[in-house]
Amino acid sequence: MSPDESNLNKGLELVDQLKFNEQGLIPAVIQEADTKEVLMVAWMDKKALELTLETKRTWFYSRSRKTYWQKGETSGNRQFVRGVFLDCDNDVLLVSVHQEGTGACHTGERTCFFKQLL
Amino acid sequence: MSPDESNLNKGLELVDQLKFNEQGLIPAVIQEADTKEVLMVAWMDKKALELTLETKRTWFYSRSRKTYWQKGETSGNRQFVRGVFLDCDNDVLLVSVHQEGTGACHTGERTCFFKQLL
Repeated sequence: MSPDESNLNKGLELVDQLKFNEQGLIPAVIQEADTKEVLMVAWMDKKALELTLETKRTWFYSRSRKTYWQKGETSGNRQFVRGVFLDCDNDVLLVSVHQEGTGACHTGERTCFFKQLL
Repeated sequence: MSPDESNLNKGLELVDQLKFNEQGLIPAVIQEADTKEVLMVAWMDKKALELTLETKRTWFYSRSRKTYWQKGETSGNRQFVRGVFLDCDNDVLLVSVHQEGTGACHTGERTCFFKQLL
């Protein structure tokens, strides 16, 4: 088994440990790999995660539209996946990406977290 | 009104815009202010957020224990709040902190996201 295959198998074993919520979803925090800026949080189900791992582009499940969407598919603001991490409780994903285009937010902002409470 | 009071009022207006889920909770992404490392994700309700804004320490609501907890209360790994941000959809918080002690994770790791899928 090559190192690449070994890493892939290790990743797939971790997928089986994931705890999805009662709707079959898990939140994914999307972070810019270079600047470490937190860009957005969206939801994945198992299929969206598998698509993300396979294509190295981010795929999400829209709870309101009940459909899969690939980030940047229409806007051109694509996200290229650099790494995927799972938290200690197996119920949150962290996805490190290279953000293409103007940014991650549908409002045109670079990050979705542009409103400051404190 | 002093600039401090003006900022506080602006923050409190944003609190009213928050969309909590059906359990009255909102996910909070906790990020180290200096290194920009994503440390953990936990849940807040309105009271936990208000305690966080007032004390400038992180407070969460434990869904399993059905109780409020202040991060680092027992472990000493306290989080001092530097900033709180709300996303475009008003349903996720980003909290910038200074992480004290060994780290944020109950396993002893610095970040909860220490398992790599890809």
